[in-house]
Amino acid sequence: MTEIQIEIEEKLLHLLETEDIIEFRQEFLELHPYDQAKFFENQNRDLRRRIYEYMSPEEMAPIIENLESGDEVEEIITDMTPAYAADMLAEMYADDAADVLNELEKNQVASYLNIMDDEAAREIQELLHYDEYTAGSIMTTEFISIETNQTIRSAMQILKKEAPDAETIYYLYVVDDEKKLVGVISLRDLIISDEDMMIAEIMYDRVVSVSVGDDQEVVARTMKDYNFLALPVVDFTGHLLGIITVDDIIDVIDEEASDDYSKLAAVSNMDTIDRGSFSAAKKRLPWLVILLFLGMLTANLIGRFEETLDQVAILAVFIPLIAGMAGNTGTQALAVAVRNIATGDTFQTSIWKSIWREAGTGLITGATCGILVTLIVFFWKQNLVLGGLVGISIFITLFIATIAGAIIPLLMHQFKIDPAVASGPFITTINDIISIIVYFGLATMFMQYLL
Amino acid sequence: MTEIQIEIEEKLLHLLETEDIIEFRQEFLELHPYDQAKFFENQNRDLRRRIYEYMSPEEMAPIIENLESGDEVEEIITDMTPAYAADMLAEMYADDAADVLNELEKNQVASYLNIMDDEAAREIQELLHYDEYTAGSIMTTEFISIETNQTIRSAMQILKKEAPDAETIYYLYVVDDEKKLVGVISLRDLIISDEDMMIAEIMYDRVVSVSVGDDQEVVARTMKDYNFLALPVVDFTGHLLGIITVDDIIDVIDEEASDDYSKLAAVSNMDTIDRGSFSAAKKRLPWLVILLFLGMLTANLIGRFEETLDQVAILAVFIPLIAGMAGNTGTQALAVAVRNIATGDTFQTSIWKSIWREAGTGLITGATCGILVTLIVFFWKQNLVLGGLVGISIFITLFIATIAGAIIPLLMHQFKIDPAVASGPFITTINDIISIIVYFGLATMFMQYLL
Repeated sequence: MTEIQIEIEEKLLHLLETEDIIEFRQEFLELHPYDQAKFFENQNRDLRRRIYEYMSPEEMAPIIENLESGDEVEEIITDMTPAYAADMLAEMYADDAADVLNELEKNQVASYLNIMDDEAAREIQELLHYDEYTAGSIMTTEFISIETNQTIRSAMQILKKEAPDAETIYYLYVVDDEKKLVGVISLRDLIISDEDMMIAEIMYDRVVSVSVGDDQEVVARTMKDYNFLALPVVDFTGHLLGIITVDDIIDVIDEEASDDYSKLAAVSNMDTIDRGSFSAAKKRLPWLVILLFLGMLTANLIGRFEETLDQVAILAVFIPLIAGMAGNTGTQALAVAVRNIATGDTFQTSIWKSIWREAGTGLITGATCGILVTLIVFFWKQNLVLGGLVGISIFITLFIATIAGAIIPLLMHQFKIDPAVASGPFITTINDIISIIVYFGLATMFMQYLL
Repeated sequence: MTEIQIEIEEKLLHLLETEDIIEFRQEFLELHPYDQAKFFENQNRDLRRRIYEYMSPEEMAPIIENLESGDEVEEIITDMTPAYAADMLAEMYADDAADVLNELEKNQVASYLNIMDDEAAREIQELLHYDEYTAGSIMTTEFISIETNQTIRSAMQILKKEAPDAETIYYLYVVDDEKKLVGVISLRDLIISDEDMMIAEIMYDRVVSVSVGDDQEVVARTMKDYNFLALPVVDFTGHLLGIITVDDIIDVIDEEASDDYSKLAAVSNMDTIDRGSFSAAKKRLPWLVILLFLGMLTANLIGRFEETLDQVAILAVFIPLIAGMAGNTGTQALAVAVRNIATGDTFQTSIWKSIWREAGTGLITGATCGILVTLIVFFWKQNLVLGGLVGISIFITLFIATIAGAIIPLLMHQFKIDPAVASGPFITTINDIISIIVYFGLATMFMQYLL
């Protein structure tokens, strides 16, 4: 499979370089739009220009829809003549066209919409109004709607007529005369039913929908739970505004997961591939500098116990162990909380219940690790007081760190802050501070037994 | 929406408790299978038993298909009479039935397959052969295939006949007389084309397929890239064996993302919701104990520099800072590498190129943080030597930790070990060790200037 594709790519490149328009078009247009987009993306600016000079705006539309690197879309569009770009945008699915226009400057957007034919411009413009990450921003208005008092035969006729332009034809949404959503029929049900039956008889009237202002995560969760291929989007009075298809939701699920993952690792925008050292460093340095200053706070805190350290230098040996264990257990609790929030599981259990459970977990893990570490230090250093001190510190620290790891994201979620952000800096620093206060506090208190 | 559902749930519960079979069936069967499954899951064992006593095996099948808690499926199935369970499994989609049977013991599986009708048993049995996480394990055999020399009219007739049993009817796969996959037609194309045309004329013959042994991640990536609703699965000679539908792939994408996320946080099996403190502690303790022993290694290493520490106790103040920064930068590099491997981006760039890029990134971030920390420590402690020592340690440590974070997952991937596993324990410990050797090594070397 891959070898064949490399062969085709080389052939296409050769045809492009020798300016063999006819042969190139024939080979290129046989490819799946995703493969066309891959090929297009891999070329330099000059060859990209040549490709769209060979293609009609209609042929170019699916290629732009399948582009992966959002960053370069601006360059690609502005390279085209305005009339060509406007034509192409009009041919694209309205939601994809709106995504592209969102990358451009305001006056540029206005000029394209101005050139475009009125219906396409109106459809795109409507979508541009919605806030990012809401159902409205990812929905498309190219859906098929029918009315209750139709026969299946007439519905099939509408479907055949609208099929070329609709984003999906596998669900037909049923509206009343006020355009309110009242039902849904799958194409499967339509095909296996008697043609003379009425829509109202076979439609499913407990239709699941999302609100236009819902977060895209809510949409993703609903689609995943119900295994739908598309979901209708309604306004607050129940009017059907658009639909969201499963392929857009797959991208959302992937993005959100990458996003949570990169936040846990304290890297921003990881989903865009790092192309060079400088761009990678630029993304990671802000976090590292924050963490550096937070680390300085910890260092400052230890500095306050310098007297204790001066007397019992061996205390320093266990600093990374205790702080590390606190960090680990806090990250575990945090990760569970963040995933539970992301998958919506917290709505089913109360916050107090989660905290109570985490407290129990912290008690068990803290006690186990505390006893274990006391024994190890005792056998290693032959010093029961030191062992007990490290063990008790681990026990208290793990208990507090587990609860902190669970509470902080829940609180952030309450205050509408993305809980995934908390991970890197906050939890680590808070747990460093907790562990050092506990450890050195205890050590200073029982100094006389340690000397 | 939610309030209505709570009302319905309370009504259903009341009907169930008063044993009003007729009313309960009427209300319950109007719900979407996902909502039926949610309701079923929320009941205790006795009420669950009552629910399936009220339902036919055919009505029960979609409920089991929509269950989320894989853990409890065994209890649910074994609670039913064997004949009822076998009937129900036969009514389920073959891939879902195979998933359920994979949770049960071997002799139990054999007895169910024995009771079941032959065709259903054969279909399920075929699917049980494939390794977990391969395309074969998630595919279904209930697809619609047609032949090239048919008209569209006759294809539509086949479709209408097979629609009730097929998992998707939105793609028809075209096979030759040896059952080899040669093309695909979407239902959309079928509907808008002239009924007298031949399949061979309108089918798309560069059909994208996956191999039965391919990893489910490969399948997910292909489906995501091409925006398909289903993908055909073939054996190594190109025979069509089954299809994988997009709803199963959404679950795969979600699972894999959760899996990578929980490994980064060192929690195993996070996707199953922790129901109590003990089960949560049981999942987290193995990691914590490993991390405890690895932390002991680090403590032992610092212990070897006890003499240095005894002379300059202030050195201890910066241990968490340096080790923490090394851990952070290593985790960043690791997360990028793991995600790149997961999304398949590494196949496009060579390993050496990634390492080279990470080395550059480490150089930039290391130098920036090193200079910054030197200045801070200098102004804070009025000690340029100490500042320089901490700064140079940060610089060297960040440089090495970044490269280590990138190389280790790539190496693991080469040796077919899941790179996500590396995250928690390995990277942290390796970076702790590196940072302590560099820091205390330099401190011991330049001791005379520190005193």
